[in-house]
Amino acid sequence: MTAARDTSSETSATPAKPAMRDALVAAAFQLFLERGYEQTTIDDIVTLAGVGRRSFFRYFPSKEDVVFPDHEQCLADMTALLEASEDGDDPVARVCDAARLVLRMYAENPVFSVQRYQLTKKVPGLRTYELSVVWRYERTLAEYLRARFSARRDGTLRADVIASAVVTAHNHALRAWLRAGGEGDASAAVDHALDYVARAWTPERSPADGAAEEDEVVIVITKRSTPMWRVVRDVEAGLGRG
Amino acid sequence: MTAARDTSSETSATPAKPAMRDALVAAAFQLFLERGYEQTTIDDIVTLAGVGRRSFFRYFPSKEDVVFPDHEQCLADMTALLEASEDGDDPVARVCDAARLVLRMYAENPVFSVQRYQLTKKVPGLRTYELSVVWRYERTLAEYLRARFSARRDGTLRADVIASAVVTAHNHALRAWLRAGGEGDASAAVDHALDYVARAWTPERSPADGAAEEDEVVIVITKRSTPMWRVVRDVEAGLGRG
Repeated sequence: MTAARDTSSETSATPAKPAMRDALVAAAFQLFLERGYEQTTIDDIVTLAGVGRRSFFRYFPSKEDVVFPDHEQCLADMTALLEASEDGDDPVARVCDAARLVLRMYAENPVFSVQRYQLTKKVPGLRTYELSVVWRYERTLAEYLRARFSARRDGTLRADVIASAVVTAHNHALRAWLRAGGEGDASAAVDHALDYVARAWTPERSPADGAAEEDEVVIVITKRSTPMWRVVRDVEAGLGRG
Repeated sequence: MTAARDTSSETSATPAKPAMRDALVAAAFQLFLERGYEQTTIDDIVTLAGVGRRSFFRYFPSKEDVVFPDHEQCLADMTALLEASEDGDDPVARVCDAARLVLRMYAENPVFSVQRYQLTKKVPGLRTYELSVVWRYERTLAEYLRARFSARRDGTLRADVIASAVVTAHNHALRAWLRAGGEGDASAAVDHALDYVARAWTPERSPADGAAEEDEVVIVITKRSTPMWRVVRDVEAGLGRG
């Protein structure tokens, strides 16, 4: 078995996903769908995959992990993308790009993703597992933003809030797509949801930090009923020409 | 034992928290701190509290639940507060008030809250449990906001994003207070964090939905270098007087 795996790794175009690992995932999902998650044992999975029990644990610490086989790789990819960020990059845009990696993983295999979504809805233990995975994505984004906002007043607060808003917006669109059976343009829906968050939190467009912190942009908020002379006066004051 | 509980319920000023329940929580925490969480069994807890095993399960479905004894009541209080909301109430302010109920629960007993925080950090199973509790708070807030924003474009997206931002901001301040050993003004810190989120998402101050959706407010964003005549033209156009 070890030899088989080694051969597969050597010849495979994607050595990070050897054939035995894929076989275990395929066997597990076949059984989960046929018998139910709780009714399937790890022994059942390895028997169907035709491998030994130790091979299972080489790839997956637990039965939950075989349900979410690609999250570790996705988290690693996300970390790499964030580490490659340069100081000039807009940090909010960067975390939105990082979140899109998760969508890409789901969208690569819609049938599998929809099956898993339906399975996760039914098994409380898998929902809890998923919450902890989502939490790790959120922390990864938040740590990056905390570093980027370190010089800023309320920087850690801003980082945590934006990270959770980005993750929530992403998952809002992703779940709608999964509920629809993987039909429709998930990518466009995620872009729309992420843009919704980015608009509220991107400095040039958001008053969240007060206009005074922005050097180049002045934001004037006025009621429709305000007399024009007063609006002009406020704009002039905002532009420092009052 | 049943008789003892009944008497306690009849004479207690707070029948929702009978003495036996408190005794079980106290015994559990004494043992968790002395021996560690994993090393303490439910039998150890009931022996120290001087009650039977069945009494434990009358109050707590599992050992995890005794660590977070007040969340169910807090969730019920939160639901009641949201249900009492009237159409004229600002929905974002309302969910901020609902989130403050969680802080109040923690702040009522700082010593216990700090002990639990330190325990939860050490036990992965408790962290997972806490994630699922946080998720329930977030869904409670989101469901309320979804109803309030039902007529709105992107209403469910807005509801989910604001709910998660409010929960994250609240927890950011709460955790800082717990890390500081329960010292300092938790309430002021939570108010500050919630205000930070509310400012970004309250219609009168946020451009997140585009000025066109707001009837009374016009937001003009301009570069400092823009000539004044162009600013005035843009303001006039925004006010519908162009």
